[in-house]
Amino acid sequence: MNISKFVTPEIIFGKNSIKQAGEACLRLGAKKVLIVSDQGVAAAGWLDKVVNLCKESCLPFAIYTDITIDPKDTEVISGSRSYIENECDAIIGVGGGSALDVAKAIAIVATNGGEIKDYEGIDKIVHPLPPMIMIMTTAGSGSEVSQFSVIVDSIRKKKMTIISKSLVPDIAIIDPLTLMTKDSSLTAATGMDVLTHAIEAYVSIAATPLTDVQAKNALSLVATYLRPSVASKTNEEAKEAMAMASLQAGLAFSNAILGAAHAISHAIGGRFPLPHGEINAILLPYVMDFNFIAAPKRFKDMAECMGIDTRAFTQREAGSAAIQYVKELSADIGIPKQLREVGISQEMIASICQTALEDACMITNPRDMNLEQMKQLLHQVL
Amino acid sequence: MNISKFVTPEIIFGKNSIKQAGEACLRLGAKKVLIVSDQGVAAAGWLDKVVNLCKESCLPFAIYTDITIDPKDTEVISGSRSYIENECDAIIGVGGGSALDVAKAIAIVATNGGEIKDYEGIDKIVHPLPPMIMIMTTAGSGSEVSQFSVIVDSIRKKKMTIISKSLVPDIAIIDPLTLMTKDSSLTAATGMDVLTHAIEAYVSIAATPLTDVQAKNALSLVATYLRPSVASKTNEEAKEAMAMASLQAGLAFSNAILGAAHAISHAIGGRFPLPHGEINAILLPYVMDFNFIAAPKRFKDMAECMGIDTRAFTQREAGSAAIQYVKELSADIGIPKQLREVGISQEMIASICQTALEDACMITNPRDMNLEQMKQLLHQVL
Repeated sequence: MNISKFVTPEIIFGKNSIKQAGEACLRLGAKKVLIVSDQGVAAAGWLDKVVNLCKESCLPFAIYTDITIDPKDTEVISGSRSYIENECDAIIGVGGGSALDVAKAIAIVATNGGEIKDYEGIDKIVHPLPPMIMIMTTAGSGSEVSQFSVIVDSIRKKKMTIISKSLVPDIAIIDPLTLMTKDSSLTAATGMDVLTHAIEAYVSIAATPLTDVQAKNALSLVATYLRPSVASKTNEEAKEAMAMASLQAGLAFSNAILGAAHAISHAIGGRFPLPHGEINAILLPYVMDFNFIAAPKRFKDMAECMGIDTRAFTQREAGSAAIQYVKELSADIGIPKQLREVGISQEMIASICQTALEDACMITNPRDMNLEQMKQLLHQVL
Repeated sequence: MNISKFVTPEIIFGKNSIKQAGEACLRLGAKKVLIVSDQGVAAAGWLDKVVNLCKESCLPFAIYTDITIDPKDTEVISGSRSYIENECDAIIGVGGGSALDVAKAIAIVATNGGEIKDYEGIDKIVHPLPPMIMIMTTAGSGSEVSQFSVIVDSIRKKKMTIISKSLVPDIAIIDPLTLMTKDSSLTAATGMDVLTHAIEAYVSIAATPLTDVQAKNALSLVATYLRPSVASKTNEEAKEAMAMASLQAGLAFSNAILGAAHAISHAIGGRFPLPHGEINAILLPYVMDFNFIAAPKRFKDMAECMGIDTRAFTQREAGSAAIQYVKELSADIGIPKQLREVGISQEMIASICQTALEDACMITNPRDMNLEQMKQLLHQVL
């Protein structure tokens, strides 16, 4: 094994842990925080909750919520302007991947200058970032613990992946009760995003024993609890398990990076406002099938994590069972099977592949994939 | 589940990762570091290695190595004096638990004043500590990632357990190649310390899903690799696995705390200069037997991690198999069975119990233990 690095924020996990947000800011020496969130989270009441916690802690704050799904570079510009004009010195992100990724991007531009596209790729951030506290309200992106921020370049119409250790927040707060305001389709899409994080991190060429334990545990939790979590808004046990799965999958992929499913999904998401988790879910079984020969033993491990009894199976049989399991899980929770169902057409494939091959996530995909192979894969999943 | 917190340093793991020590100090803004180590580590050549790395990084340094096994408060005093006189602003610990625990204790006293005993217990540290980089050279204490420092009070003749989030180092460097200079008895004792960390953390009342995955993986690694690691100084695969086991057990107990085996072992170690891991190993099966009724299901989990096929077993049978496994492992690697073999006598039991019951590690032991029960346990293991 080569030298592996593992970075995590301080993690505060559990019901009502959101109440520690104000105290956490003060502990990090914040004098005035920019609270970054979005309309959906505000509508669910979580923004007010955090605002009140800041008031209780006598902590001055400003608010920025002009964020869309698949957030854009333009939103980062106005957000960082708000951070500077309000003389903030810390950031709280409240929401799902969109809000948290914008919160991180604001931290970059407000303290390092330039535009967010200047930081696309790996380790481009020079100056230290302000204290960041991320409060996750969707068990999905893992952004609350990750080295990642994904922002759409509105001119090039592509998702830029920004990877840097300094994007790991100082404190991550994961309160399972925040998941009870998500509708079932969002729960399904974000849950499949968690599954994709766990699977791509586990077979990543950058996987280590430290990321493996997180990925495998996340996989088992998703296999056991995603269906019941989609079935009921109020199933506390399932929400808590999915929150933990999201956290552990986040710890895994933040340090092991991802693969082809995310690379392609970023390329699609940059062009079409489709649910990121849903696109991942549609692509995942096809990418798994392509990647199998790179890590047959790991596919058998994954099948076992999914609860499949593989004792009588060859690695190939176990791998196929794991892929079949993912397809059935998607079907059970109402995820489309083919890309055409979400509006992707044949003509778009070539340009999607062009963009996807340049995505940072391709670097750690366990099997080499050239343009032809990617096109072929997308034709299968179309 | 209540709110759980999980704190870890940045982890750099792998062969030759020690070479990153200098760069790591500079990254943390160190201007002059105090290198804290001990004679044994110096004799093995690891101190010189770190000294040269500092020179290569043009990083001024001072050295403190007056450290004994079961390090004393007096050593902390002279160490912090050295830190202040040399105007250091960062600390590198190089060695096993003794060197790293003293390095942490020096950081406390040098920046928070007073004596180390002022900080005994949980969360007594007020002012921030200087940047700390811990380089682990024995797969044992887990001090490189933990919130713990254990120092002997030379007047009260007891080990003081200091627990604080601020004792988690900034960067932990774990280089399996450093384990190749350990003799077999040290490898055996420190390896059983790792096992004790994993088992006590897994059944701790403060265990969480985040500590569980680490504890279980550490348990499997010890079960598979401790024997071959004791058998051969040069078995790279075994050294790497035990380094990872030590790290993961450290992450588990740092956040889940420990139990009665450590509480009693601290009480004994404060009086007699005996190998900490060896005392833990002797106590462990007896403490496990006492604790079984507090968490039967978890004992079955542990048996499975040890590679025992428990499918036909009741929880009681699985628990007994796990306890038997620990006894056999100890015997295989030459650990004494009874406390009398290492010089503990009947007369000492009462005072050992008095001290042990006050140890912070008793708080998280899964089964309540009163003075009578502890005396009885020690009579069994005598």
